[in-house]
Order: sequence, then C-alpha cells, then structure tokens
Amino acid sequence: MSDKNAARKWRQQFQIREDQKVSYRNFRPDSTPGLDGKEEALALLNKNIPKINDLQERLYAEGKQALLVVLQAMDTGGKDGTIRAVFGPLNPQGVHVSNFKAPCGRELTHDYLWRVHQAVPAKGMIGIFNRSHYEDVLIAKVRELAPKNDIQQRYRQINDFEAYLGENHVRVIKFHLCISKDEQRERLLSRLQTTEKNWKFNRGDLAERALWDDYENAYERVLKRCSPANAPWYVIPANKKWYRNAVVSQIILDTLRDMKPQFPAAEADLDQVVID
Amino acid sequence: MSDKNAARKWRQQFQIREDQKVSYRNFRPDSTPGLDGKEEALALLNKNIPKINDLQERLYAEGKQALLVVLQAMDTGGKDGTIRAVFGPLNPQGVHVSNFKAPCGRELTHDYLWRVHQAVPAKGMIGIFNRSHYEDVLIAKVRELAPKNDIQQRYRQINDFEAYLGENHVRVIKFHLCISKDEQRERLLSRLQTTEKNWKFNRGDLAERALWDDYENAYERVLKRCSPANAPWYVIPANKKWYRNAVVSQIILDTLRDMKPQFPAAEADLDQVVID
Repeated sequence: MSDKNAARKWRQQFQIREDQKVSYRNFRPDSTPGLDGKEEALALLNKNIPKINDLQERLYAEGKQALLVVLQAMDTGGKDGTIRAVFGPLNPQGVHVSNFKAPCGRELTHDYLWRVHQAVPAKGMIGIFNRSHYEDVLIAKVRELAPKNDIQQRYRQINDFEAYLGENHVRVIKFHLCISKDEQRERLLSRLQTTEKNWKFNRGDLAERALWDDYENAYERVLKRCSPANAPWYVIPANKKWYRNAVVSQIILDTLRDMKPQFPAAEADLDQVVID
Repeated sequence: MSDKNAARKWRQQFQIREDQKVSYRNFRPDSTPGLDGKEEALALLNKNIPKINDLQERLYAEGKQALLVVLQAMDTGGKDGTIRAVFGPLNPQGVHVSNFKAPCGRELTHDYLWRVHQAVPAKGMIGIFNRSHYEDVLIAKVRELAPKNDIQQRYRQINDFEAYLGENHVRVIKFHLCISKDEQRERLLSRLQTTEKNWKFNRGDLAERALWDDYENAYERVLKRCSPANAPWYVIPANKKWYRNAVVSQIILDTLRDMKPQFPAAEADLDQVVID
C-alpha cells in the first residue's frame, strides 16, 4: 500500500466519532494496517519528520496558532518512546513537553484544570501532554479520587475546555496508545530484567495492572464522551513501537497541514535596507 | 589533534576566569582551535550527542540535580542554531528551552529575576536559556533601561543568584557565542535575501548593530564581573557554525560528566516480583 493511501486511512480509521459506542475489546493493539513491516514504517517516519519540521518552523514564525497533542496510555504504553521518536527530532524551541504526575501541593488546592491550563502551548508552539486532564476521569474514576458526581460532570467540562482552546487557535488532538495486557507484561518484565531499565520499574504499576478491566471501562467512557470532531481521539495500535511511531507522525503531519501555518509577510521594502 | 586533547583544551581555553581582565577585541570569532575543518567537527558532534543523551537519561532518572545552560550572543549570533544542533537530538522530555524576550506585562511589575527563577530547570532536567537575566546588564545597560545604580548592583545579585542555584544542585554554565561584526552583516544580508528567512529580519536589529561597541563594552563588564568558577562563562568563537556546535557539545558533555548523574538504585528484591 502506498504511504499516501495508508495515511489517508489512518486518520479516518483510528479516529473515534462523537458519541460512537466504543468497545475496548474490539481494539487490535497488535495490528498494523497500512504498513508491511518495520522497515517501511521507519522509512515513513523518516520521510515525515523533515516535513513536520518545516511546518513547525512555519507555525513558530507565524505565531498565531498552537498544536496541543495529548498522549494517554496504560503504564508502559509508549508515551515516552513516542515523544522521543516523533518529537525528539524537532527543534526543541518549538516543542514543549508537560508531564502530569499525580497532583500535589499547591495543585491540589485548585480546580483540576488549573495546572493544565497553565501548560497549554503558546501560539507558535507544539505542546505535548504526557498524561493530562484525562487522568482526572481515568485514575480518578477507577480509584474514586473524587465524588462520582464530580467525575460525571468532568466529561462535559473537558469538552467545553477543549472547545474553548480550539476557538482560541489551539488545535487539540489526542492519542490513546493502545497496548494489550500481554504486551504490558512483556514490557514490565523487560524493566525488571534490564539493569538500565530497573529505575523505571515501580511496584505501584502492578496495582494499576490489577485494575486493567476498570481502566478499559474508564477509557471506553472517555472515548465515547470526549470525542468531538474539533478535538478528536485517535486510538493507535501500539504493541509494535515502529507502527505506533509511524502512524502518530503521519497524523501529526496531516494535522499540521490542515492548520496551514504561513510565514508572516516580510517587512516592507526589504530590498531597500542597507547594512553598513 | 585528537578529539580528547582538543576537548581538554576548550574548557580551559574558552573559560573566563574570575575577575579576569577581558578585552573583547582580543576574541577571535573566526578561529577554530583544535579542529581542522567542518568534517572533523561534525564527526565530533555526532560522537558527542549519544553520550550526552546517555548522561541526560541518567540525570533524569536520578532526579537530584539539573543543568542550566545560558546562551547569550549578539543578534544572529547563533543561539537558535546551537539549540537545534546540540540539544535538538536529545529527548525533549529532558530539555526545556526558555526564551527571554523584552519583559512585558506582569513581568514588568516584578523584580528582574522573578521570571528567570520560574524558568530554572527542575531536578533531572537540562534547561536552556535563550537570552537570560544577562540582558538586564546588557541591553539594559546600553539602552539605559534602569538607573545606573541599579544596574551596578546587578552583577553581584546575579552572582548571588547563580551561587544559590549551584548550592541547590542546579549547575550553571554560560556560553557567549562570539561573532564578528562582519559576520553579523553577512547573516543579516542572508535574512534579507532568502525568502524563507525574511520573517527573521527585524529592522530593530540594525539599531542594536549601530551600538555594537557599546554591546562589546557591556559584554566585557559581564564577563569580568560574573565569572565565578561555579558558574563559568565560555566565550566560543562562533563565526563558523560547525565549530561552535562541536565545541558547545563538548563542553556540555564534559560538564555532564563532572556532574556524575547515576541511575537510582532499583527497588529491593526485583528478582522476586511476579507479573501475572
């Protein structure tokens, strides 16, 4: 399949539609539609990166709109790896990664979107959220960290917040990197068995793993409730890292193209400037 | 000359010593000591980057200290290009670039270090300052943006602030990317003559260029007054971009090695963990 056809399909194929009924069991984290293997995927990634880079420079030069990329996944789902592979090669001046860990200290004295709003990318920037306000309807739901009624309201509040961002020239797209429970097991084992990865291993991840089904339910709810066309979720088969990286890069590229960032007009009469 | 010898020399060669008498005219922005040409420089940069990457991962995993890299230069001096070449290839989760433009709005209602302190990198991070608090003794001095007496006090205040950062595990190193006035002319012309660079051209830069000598004086003062051993300035010959990138990468690498970041100890009894 040609890259172009695959690309066209991916945004359609993986986007969740507004109010679509979502069954997590139907996702195929091991599948790789549109790509025949690692080599083809890497070639596509390497082809996309300079194009993304070019569009990023235009976005920065233009300074009128921003792109916010939300990454959510189960533990070990590949958020860090995606950031490294897809956004690592870009100009770091135009990219800002925000990590949302469990809120603490001053953050807890505020409403849950307070810290999120502060991290919204400035015009000209690509902002990456490594986890996000969606934790406030994921772990917060599974672990009952807030009253049920509060959580119930958050889907709408989040939609409103993201719509507001869109209206203010911050384009929002959201990726759920979807791995299987078996794949998570492999990745956790690798953290245990590889000395340089030991530091990433956290017993707490096992407690969350034990609640896998609850998280699936929470994701189903999120995907169903928070998928307006102006802030879409893409559920990416992510057991194969090479597939995940290629597809995310393509969707980023296509989204940036949609945004049509333009170099600003040069100052007038540049041809008459004299530099002594 | 072997890379190792060159590297050893660069930190010594380009570091300004405390209270050293500095004559800007003595800098040789066109020189390239320790490297024979572009190819050798690129090979060194490419050799250094994976090493920096590895140390960055350790710094991040350790989470106990941070590196703050200050970049200052005359307009067109190559701050952006350095960031792209040296820090671009690193994991964007571990790098945060802060741009300090002319202070405005709320920033102006605060002391001049207020916004700077907020941008100090968190533990585990490499923070890059594209311009910095040094503008408050550079353009602020040249343009008389603050009372003379205030500016006079700032050198000491900045030294105190940077010492405080060092004591709190934020290692500070500062680069002055040193270009010649002729080289600036070439680079400004290139912005005028290349359509995709037009947006970078700013007539205001010509007004600053007209004050070149005043800026040289202001830099001399900064380098003399703010060069304690714990927060050194390196003045890098930067007419040749390939030379600048290679040398900056080497000094970053050597500094990270000095910091000796370590992977944290793994949790106990990892070999007994069972993942179902």
